Amino acid sequence: MTMYSQQIIVKRFPTGWVQSTDFDHIRTELPPLNAGEVLIQNEWLSLDPYMRGRLSAAKSYAQSAQVGHVMVGQAAGTVIESKSANFKVGDAVLAFTGWQTHCVLNETLVQRVIPDGAPLSAYLGVLGMPGVTAWRGLIDICNPIKGETVVVDAASGAVGSVVGQLAKNLGCKVIGVAGGAAKCSYVVSELGFDACIDHTSKSFKAEFSDAVQGGIDCAFENVGGAVFETVLAKMNPFSRIALCGLVSEYNAEPYGNKQLRSILVNRIRLQGFIVSDQLETWPAIIKSLEDLLKGGKLKFRETVAQGIESAPSAFVGMFRGENLGKQLVKLSG
Amino acid sequence: MTMYSQQIIVKRFPTGWVQSTDFDHIRTELPPLNAGEVLIQNEWLSLDPYMRGRLSAAKSYAQSAQVGHVMVGQAAGTVIESKSANFKVGDAVLAFTGWQTHCVLNETLVQRVIPDGAPLSAYLGVLGMPGVTAWRGLIDICNPIKGETVVVDAASGAVGSVVGQLAKNLGCKVIGVAGGAAKCSYVVSELGFDACIDHTSKSFKAEFSDAVQGGIDCAFENVGGAVFETVLAKMNPFSRIALCGLVSEYNAEPYGNKQLRSILVNRIRLQGFIVSDQLETWPAIIKSLEDLLKGGKLKFRETVAQGIESAPSAFVGMFRGENLGKQLVKLSG
Repeated sequence: MTMYSQQIIVKRFPTGWVQSTDFDHIRTELPPLNAGEVLIQNEWLSLDPYMRGRLSAAKSYAQSAQVGHVMVGQAAGTVIESKSANFKVGDAVLAFTGWQTHCVLNETLVQRVIPDGAPLSAYLGVLGMPGVTAWRGLIDICNPIKGETVVVDAASGAVGSVVGQLAKNLGCKVIGVAGGAAKCSYVVSELGFDACIDHTSKSFKAEFSDAVQGGIDCAFENVGGAVFETVLAKMNPFSRIALCGLVSEYNAEPYGNKQLRSILVNRIRLQGFIVSDQLETWPAIIKSLEDLLKGGKLKFRETVAQGIESAPSAFVGMFRGENLGKQLVKLSG
Repeated sequence: MTMYSQQIIVKRFPTGWVQSTDFDHIRTELPPLNAGEVLIQNEWLSLDPYMRGRLSAAKSYAQSAQVGHVMVGQAAGTVIESKSANFKVGDAVLAFTGWQTHCVLNETLVQRVIPDGAPLSAYLGVLGMPGVTAWRGLIDICNPIKGETVVVDAASGAVGSVVGQLAKNLGCKVIGVAGGAAKCSYVVSELGFDACIDHTSKSFKAEFSDAVQGGIDCAFENVGGAVFETVLAKMNPFSRIALCGLVSEYNAEPYGNKQLRSILVNRIRLQGFIVSDQLETWPAIIKSLEDLLKGGKLKFRETVAQGIESAPSAFVGMFRGENLGKQLVKLSG
């Protein structure tokens, strides 16, 4: 039987704001399976801010997406045909299939998931790349101790929400920064942060300054721009910053940060990191996150767009802050 | 006999560029010595960029200078009267006397120097705070290995000149950045850097880019501003930056640095540091620098202003790049 995949294709690299019209939706015939290959039917597409960096020919840490090809990204699905001894029909798997409904891949590019009481989609979020990102930046780079003050921006997002909860579990004072009252309310009342400041507020700087009295010992930076500048100005001597993202700048001109003097005066250690650099650390971290989740020490939310055709607009919406928690696309079965 | 000290007093805190008229020159009667005190006659005043940060009420890592009081700073001189069992007349000493010809200090604030084949003034430069600063930032923070590319700006200065020579001794490729052809020529032909790019050149960015083909593994940052932005853009993956100074910004508005994305994409570790944080490391480092100097592996230059009355204008000139190597003031005996 001939199999088809519905795919979202990169039509052009955006300049400035990414738009839905930068993508096309096509149907492609899939090849028959060779030995060692599996056919995956995707159930969930993962949408993540880092993907904006792929829509560019600029040098980065990973290969760009390509115009005319499937938009890159990770997905979760099920094996529906297998010529691999390692996978059988029905196996739940993760793979970097890109934005498409079906995909034929060599077994070496496919990762089995055995969900441990969590839904499969969680392995794209709190128990996947975003969760591990939060752990690596907070625990391995910032390394906060009990009583220290931790700041995380994009606090209601897939990464930020885990950062703050991990820091609370360590006994830190945790101040979030998020866009809008609803997100801030969620972060404090549901996730247990000590405070969350709305960066869209006109009095953001004053409110943030009040919230971090005593200064910041650790910052987990996702946003960049004016928010990061404000954070930098409040860092304590010998503080640490994990630079994970600069999402406010991905669709705009780079921001001119005027607070580098704080790095000098306060002897700050600022460390950029990419979670895929230490793949060997992932299994143990995911196991720890699973345990926290089962123990009720870690909560998460998902924002779900329906159908592959919604992927481009959901992607654009994510940069406008329309999601709460992990942004996913649910594919119809 | 009544003793007097000629002193340079802070008249007001400058806004923007420091000027000679921000200081006054006075003569003050010194008190008689109490038990445990010494009277020092200074021979050399040390002028260092960090002192600009003292001329401000802004929070920094050390106490500000005070309006109406002697300008702060280290000096080298001789004990000419002693009520201390630890110091005798004729001892060569270092102390933070500030800008004055004579000073009465408690013995606990005075450090004996036994010059090991080097002139006393060297203990304010290559064998003193600037030399230790170069070592700490390059060896302890950047930690370059043979074959790596090291960039240092303010390359002909008291710190930068040591950074580059230490890196050459380690087998690194060393690219300097300095202001003007004369300084660049000195850095290459006398100090042995592989290249030095003049940041005042209109084609600075292109020349710098050519010089650091293959990227930068370690940067020792003294200057900030547009130079640091240019350096950041050329850093390699997993590179290290020791942030030692932002001298281009000390007399001006902070620069808006638009290259923070490089820290993220290249997983750069950017570490601010202040050499006085680890005083316990100084003796061993100074011993190592003395050995390099005796072995001909370390060269230095001094720019000497004559007489205490010249201190303010020499200080201003240092920020305009008028010095080559360590800026000193020689006091008449």
